[in-house]
Amino acid sequence: MTAMEKIQEIRDAKWFSNLTTFIILAYASILGFKTLDEVEGHYDLFLRVADYFVTVYFVFELAIKMVAEKKFVNFFKSGWNVFDFVIVVITLLPLESSSFAAIARLMRVFRILRLFTARPELKAIIDMLIKAIPSIIDIVILMFIIFYIYAIIGSFFFVDLPSGLWKDFLISMLTLFRVLTFEDWTDVMYEAMEVYPWAWIYFVSFVIIAAFVFFNLFVAVIIGEMQKLQEAEMKEEIHEDSKKLDVLLKEVKSLREEISELKKKDT
Amino acid sequence: MTAMEKIQEIRDAKWFSNLTTFIILAYASILGFKTLDEVEGHYDLFLRVADYFVTVYFVFELAIKMVAEKKFVNFFKSGWNVFDFVIVVITLLPLESSSFAAIARLMRVFRILRLFTARPELKAIIDMLIKAIPSIIDIVILMFIIFYIYAIIGSFFFVDLPSGLWKDFLISMLTLFRVLTFEDWTDVMYEAMEVYPWAWIYFVSFVIIAAFVFFNLFVAVIIGEMQKLQEAEMKEEIHEDSKKLDVLLKEVKSLREEISELKKKDT
Amino acid sequence: MTAMEKIQEIRDAKWFSNLTTFIILAYASILGFKTLDEVEGHYDLFLRVADYFVTVYFVFELAIKMVAEKKFVNFFKSGWNVFDFVIVVITLLPLESSSFAAIARLMRVFRILRLFTARPELKAIIDMLIKAIPSIIDIVILMFIIFYIYAIIGSFFFVDLPSGLWKDFLISMLTLFRVLTFEDWTDVMYEAMEVYPWAWIYFVSFVIIAAFVFFNLFVAVIIGEMQKLQEAEMKEEIHEDSKKLDVLLKEVKSLREEISELKKKDT
Amino acid sequence: MTAMEKIQEIRDAKWFSNLTTFIILAYASILGFKTLDEVEGHYDLFLRVADYFVTVYFVFELAIKMVAEKKFVNFFKSGWNVFDFVIVVITLLPLESSSFAAIARLMRVFRILRLFTARPELKAIIDMLIKAIPSIIDIVILMFIIFYIYAIIGSFFFVDLPSGLWKDFLISMLTLFRVLTFEDWTDVMYEAMEVYPWAWIYFVSFVIIAAFVFFNLFVAVIIGEMQKLQEAEMKEEIHEDSKKLDVLLKEVKSLREEISELKKKDT
Repeated sequence: MTAMEKIQEIRDAKWFSNLTTFIILAYASILGFKTLDEVEGHYDLFLRVADYFVTVYFVFELAIKMVAEKKFVNFFKSGWNVFDFVIVVITLLPLESSSFAAIARLMRVFRILRLFTARPELKAIIDMLIKAIPSIIDIVILMFIIFYIYAIIGSFFFVDLPSGLWKDFLISMLTLFRVLTFEDWTDVMYEAMEVYPWAWIYFVSFVIIAAFVFFNLFVAVIIGEMQKLQEAEMKEEIHEDSKKLDVLLKEVKSLREEISELKKKDT
Repeated sequence: MTAMEKIQEIRDAKWFSNLTTFIILAYASILGFKTLDEVEGHYDLFLRVADYFVTVYFVFELAIKMVAEKKFVNFFKSGWNVFDFVIVVITLLPLESSSFAAIARLMRVFRILRLFTARPELKAIIDMLIKAIPSIIDIVILMFIIFYIYAIIGSFFFVDLPSGLWKDFLISMLTLFRVLTFEDWTDVMYEAMEVYPWAWIYFVSFVIIAAFVFFNLFVAVIIGEMQKLQEAEMKEEIHEDSKKLDVLLKEVKSLREEISELKKKDT
Repeated sequence: MTAMEKIQEIRDAKWFSNLTTFIILAYASILGFKTLDEVEGHYDLFLRVADYFVTVYFVFELAIKMVAEKKFVNFFKSGWNVFDFVIVVITLLPLESSSFAAIARLMRVFRILRLFTARPELKAIIDMLIKAIPSIIDIVILMFIIFYIYAIIGSFFFVDLPSGLWKDFLISMLTLFRVLTFEDWTDVMYEAMEVYPWAWIYFVSFVIIAAFVFFNLFVAVIIGEMQKLQEAEMKEEIHEDSKKLDVLLKEVKSLREEISELKKKDT
Repeated sequence: MTAMEKIQEIRDAKWFSNLTTFIILAYASILGFKTLDEVEGHYDLFLRVADYFVTVYFVFELAIKMVAEKKFVNFFKSGWNVFDFVIVVITLLPLESSSFAAIARLMRVFRILRLFTARPELKAIIDMLIKAIPSIIDIVILMFIIFYIYAIIGSFFFVDLPSGLWKDFLISMLTLFRVLTFEDWTDVMYEAMEVYPWAWIYFVSFVIIAAFVFFNLFVAVIIGEMQKLQEAEMKEEIHEDSKKLDVLLKEVKSLREEISELKKKDT
């Protein structure tokens, strides 16, 4: 067994992936507490050490994955590898003392995203969501049309309301999104109704069309997508039965022909 | 190839529909920004030009669709054509300088609705929703009965509450709609409970009946409608298998008869 | 055709049921407006006439239904007839001038419930809901246990909070119902957290257990119930195919036996 | 029939389980009223008696279950028996006069949990929920990642906002949970937008990703889990049909062979 094979074995080992998962989760919890007690100087030292250790471990893990590849360039062919590489490189940049220090520290949070690389089940969910996009896209466009028309009408009539919730197109869009989540939408309505008594038609129709109909369509599409996956198996079996029936029919027909021949000969 | 055929080819071309889609979306975004910065005079000029261009393009597109028709009257047989025609005509009316100028400008927003004519997928969703109406209508009637009874009771007992949320029948309906969306419904309840301590029964029962039961029935019907479409395919195959089985049975039976005949001859 | 047969024909006629439906709906709308403008004396006269007319029509309709029955007692065997009878009798009671006048007027609202007798589709929905009860009852009991335990804990710890939202067991139940609908639940939580910093565990766990898990189970059960009805048809066909296959197997087996006999004779 | 057999008969009797259920529910209601009117000394005496009675009944019931077991140790092999035992023992501890009196009284509430032992349907729901955990666990992890990243970003940027909703990591998590339930989430957003005008991107993206996508996935998984149970039956039948078809094919093929033999002999 060459050194190369040993490195590949380590890369593919279950314990290696588990170790990485554990280190990411431990680091994430420490980072959470870091924000909790950022004042304590003593604690900070411990965090610096943890930070340093994780950085070293990540570089080490990345190195193993790179070396294990026969051709160095293959490493970058996988999107997830590029993803890992970018995250590791960003945290390696010497930004601690520079003016970007705060941003750099924040960037480190995205290390938790490496959990996707560790747990294949999470990738599966993301894949399912990506597959569901084509069936959702038209509902999103429909939604955009509804929002657009209501936003234009809203920013046209309600532009001067004291709350400033309709002062321009984008703010109107945001206000409509708020109404979509039912968040204090009656406050917005009552304010508009004081000037325009018919405003309740605008709001009630929006709630019914956008929230009731849209939301249910959205739910129906996602549930339908999940069920398609589950029913695929059952359809397969029904389809096979159908094929078997075709074979049977052929067999029986040829049987009949042979018997007819028998009969002719007999007579 | 006559001029007529060329025009029909243009009308049915994919690039022509894509161009229309792009122009609608571009115009919609410009219109959004128009509301954003309506003060700037310089910007306004650019918008006037865009406005003028879109109007001309729409007339041009409509003309092509009209000319391409063999009989002029056929053009108005399609509901979507009439829809396009009305939208174009309204924006052509010389209302800019009149007192309806504001309304006219608002009307232009509805040009985004022409996206439906451009994207057949959107028409499909609208069709599905229209198909689902018969199965929803009875839930809506049921809902109306619930609202009606609660509104009458509410406007009878709570009519003098200081908030004025129950001052007449229509306002009571609106207040109940608000309770349906859970929007600050406890504020409404606590106010009523100060005068009528039993009022919580009224509100809690309404929330359970209208929001819990109604909403779920609504969801169940829409999801059921979506699944009917998806399962149609599977049912088709099961149905075909059933037919094949019938053919098989006939074949086997006639086979048996022939063999019986053979047997008789033999003896 | 006797007079009796004619009356039965009228009772079962589509136009008679449609007329009743129309009168109920018209009366319901008038009653809605009555609450709107109860002050206007002139308008009130019109309403008195409408009221009088509907009362007479209902008595007339009831009389037809009673006379059409061969035995008078059969009329009361149908639950819906009893329902109709009670509603009509209540509005006939001479309570206008008595101290129950207001209640009597309110009672008239329940006439809209007679729509159920007119539209069979509404009865179907009610039937479906009643059928779904057995599958929901255990979730309701589970819900009650969760509410009970949280209410006792809540009214034990939070009893002295200034808002009085936990001052006794029933009020605590109501407060928890409010939290279930997410209605200003953080206000309740923040108040409790000021005295008991751990209170967020109480509220967050309740929201997750009661609102997330319960609500979804509820939805799942109702949707499942609806689908059972829809799938019954498909199951039927699969079941029939299975029976046909059994017949086929028998046929083929007896065929084989006959051929075996043929073979023996031949040799 | 020995005394032992009689005790086992009592333990398994339907009336014994019904009696236990009734006593638990009666005791639970009394306990609810206890919290209602804890002041009344007279009433308190009645409750003490009820309390005493239930304790004695529970000990008695437990004794029967223990004695009915052939080997005493078997009793503790069932998780539910251990559960019952712990609940009874806790309420037997003489804590009334000690400083733990309040806690002891609260503990008694958990006696309602013994309803699970009495109603098997409730155990079934709990089992279904436990079975659904593996399919939910990855969505929960996904959810944790989303919460984690948003909480770190939120507690980084919004830490100094006057409301203190982002003052440390845990509080930020709680605030995000609040946003997930749409509870006054715009108040949180508007406060952040005053300092960081781009904050709406943070909140709107969180609402769309966490509330819209997550919640629907959650619903889809639970509904899918329920349907798997329901469809198992249908799949079974389709599977059996498939087997029958295989048998049929074999039969027909051997039939053909026999006829071929017949033919050869004939010639």
